[in-house]
Amino acid sequence: MEQRRNKVDETHRGLPSQLTMPCRLLLGPGPSNVHPRVRAALGMNEVGHLDPSFLKIVAESQELLRYAWQTDNRFTIPVSGSGSAAMEACLANCVEQGDVVLIGVNGYFGERLCDMAARYGADVRRLEKSWGEVFSLEEMAAGIQTHRPAILGLVHAETSTGALQPMEGIGKLCREFDCLFLLDTVTSLGGIPVFLDRWHVDLAYSGSQKCLSCPPGIAPLTMNERALAKIGRRKTKVPNWYLDMSLLDKYWGNERTYHHTAPINMNYALREALLLVAEEGLGERWERHQENARILWEGLAELGIECLVDRDYRLASLTTAVVPDKVDAKSVCSYLMENYSIEIAGGLGQLAGKVWRIGLMGFNSRRENVLLLLSALDKAIADT
Amino acid sequence: MEQRRNKVDETHRGLPSQLTMPCRLLLGPGPSNVHPRVRAALGMNEVGHLDPSFLKIVAESQELLRYAWQTDNRFTIPVSGSGSAAMEACLANCVEQGDVVLIGVNGYFGERLCDMAARYGADVRRLEKSWGEVFSLEEMAAGIQTHRPAILGLVHAETSTGALQPMEGIGKLCREFDCLFLLDTVTSLGGIPVFLDRWHVDLAYSGSQKCLSCPPGIAPLTMNERALAKIGRRKTKVPNWYLDMSLLDKYWGNERTYHHTAPINMNYALREALLLVAEEGLGERWERHQENARILWEGLAELGIECLVDRDYRLASLTTAVVPDKVDAKSVCSYLMENYSIEIAGGLGQLAGKVWRIGLMGFNSRRENVLLLLSALDKAIADT
Repeated sequence: MEQRRNKVDETHRGLPSQLTMPCRLLLGPGPSNVHPRVRAALGMNEVGHLDPSFLKIVAESQELLRYAWQTDNRFTIPVSGSGSAAMEACLANCVEQGDVVLIGVNGYFGERLCDMAARYGADVRRLEKSWGEVFSLEEMAAGIQTHRPAILGLVHAETSTGALQPMEGIGKLCREFDCLFLLDTVTSLGGIPVFLDRWHVDLAYSGSQKCLSCPPGIAPLTMNERALAKIGRRKTKVPNWYLDMSLLDKYWGNERTYHHTAPINMNYALREALLLVAEEGLGERWERHQENARILWEGLAELGIECLVDRDYRLASLTTAVVPDKVDAKSVCSYLMENYSIEIAGGLGQLAGKVWRIGLMGFNSRRENVLLLLSALDKAIADT
Repeated sequence: MEQRRNKVDETHRGLPSQLTMPCRLLLGPGPSNVHPRVRAALGMNEVGHLDPSFLKIVAESQELLRYAWQTDNRFTIPVSGSGSAAMEACLANCVEQGDVVLIGVNGYFGERLCDMAARYGADVRRLEKSWGEVFSLEEMAAGIQTHRPAILGLVHAETSTGALQPMEGIGKLCREFDCLFLLDTVTSLGGIPVFLDRWHVDLAYSGSQKCLSCPPGIAPLTMNERALAKIGRRKTKVPNWYLDMSLLDKYWGNERTYHHTAPINMNYALREALLLVAEEGLGERWERHQENARILWEGLAELGIECLVDRDYRLASLTTAVVPDKVDAKSVCSYLMENYSIEIAGGLGQLAGKVWRIGLMGFNSRRENVLLLLSALDKAIADT
């Protein structure tokens, strides 16, 4: 009896073969290819999550993050999850039941902000614009005046549309109307200009796997004192234990109280990725992204392919190229993957089938990648 | 003006030195050392999170997880976060406002389950026992009869106390009283016997960085049809977007709808860690953990050090050794770290200063590690 009870069932004991992954050039909306130095850091020997050597390298990451974001925020941390977890961390902590939250919705990630905010009890108001367009300062001002939100949420770089939201004046408006300014910088951080403090952004998050060229699984998050003050005034516990900033602050702050086990190796990788940003310099890095995007846009024009977004608001890190008439978007993606091992992506949501999304992010923003993609795309369109 | 506005602030542009981490033998409560093959897998070249090659290896992980847990559950996935995220995923999805949730509290992680469940609106009832003790089937039955919970939450292997909860009969009781059985297997999966289906466990979670010898940052989660049915009957959205299983099921299931970017490299690592479990075989692996724990316990006895937990309920993967009179717990930990680069941990919560926590988990459960630790501990006690 005892023996039968303890007998191991072998049903699911598959023994798949040794891990080998195909070599891809990842020119979609992310993940982008990991920088070789980041990969090396990822494999560094692990230590405990309260080891002084670990706390030291995370403190270095925090400082490098402040540089990348151009912020002095003390509370600047790596969240133990993907960019979506850091997005949720912002809302879970700042939103209290009934708070009016105004979201700029001009793409998929604005939609997601609405969904998340509503789950935390927000009274969500939408400021809408066609996918691919951006909001003017006047539209923002009208929205804020109408809705008087506690929080304004905007996507700086919409990965679903390739549009770059101009920042001028919005933060000041938020201060004037005593509203927190939340910014999604997932596809801008480390690739295109971000000046959090100058823009009066109160809380922001990003991803690791876009312009930082680090694997996914860790996500930058920052909050200033205005945001922390709103959290400090909460009357209820944050309805999310894993992402409760008051608990996380005790670990990442000076107390070093155990909360959860931080992803050790992912933190090594993030630090190396941020160090690469600091070594190159933000100005140089932004110029490189801009220059390679320019080559891409000119090359696409030569192939007769238009960009969805107006040149003035076009994102250097992610281009939405309009699929020409009589070309099947999906077939071209498959062709590129099968013949060139290049990944680009189709459109999300209402842009499905209408655009390709081409990312030139971080380490991948290199002239040779652009030229290779243009040649391959030319061939793919001819052959499919 | 434009130029001043776009000038990069160099304040936080630190350029820390090349990443070098000390070599530690991690014999605390986790993370444990990563298996060399897992480390190699972690550094494998990345692909997109919708790449067929990625979906294939995750499907292999899912099957290997079923083997490790001894379950047929279709819904068996890696959560993109630490074990605490998988813990929260269970509660966020299964708890609805007002649900009575009965938690066995005999250590830190039982306490955490109470905290989390309350954040999701549960009417939390506590079944308490001294730290280091376990619940009898009679105590469980009495608790269930009194509280008639919708969910019973138990910790199989309490990492804070080193106690192993006997499973016999509990799951059957839960079925009888129409209650979901939630089990924390963070410190048992891959190290000591777990038979989820035979024990009638409805949902369970674990961590990667304990007996699986994988880095932290990804966490196994499984739910059977009873648990999924309760989720399916929810009247409200899961108040947590990142961990909403109905959304995750669309990604990990057949639809492959984009939810968040999965941690690619961490998934490589988890697959390799699970493959190592399958190659060794569960029976052999459990025996190895038991045998090395036995050597540790006998060695501790020879040093005059007692174990907190009764031999019958003592966890092979994590031993709580009682700090002898006149010995300073912290000084010994520091001595081991400074002189031997060995990490063991002190007690958590009410056991702080009273016990050491010694982990022999996964790859680290090796005879040479036990002998090294015993010698070092002997020396540390003599010298501090």
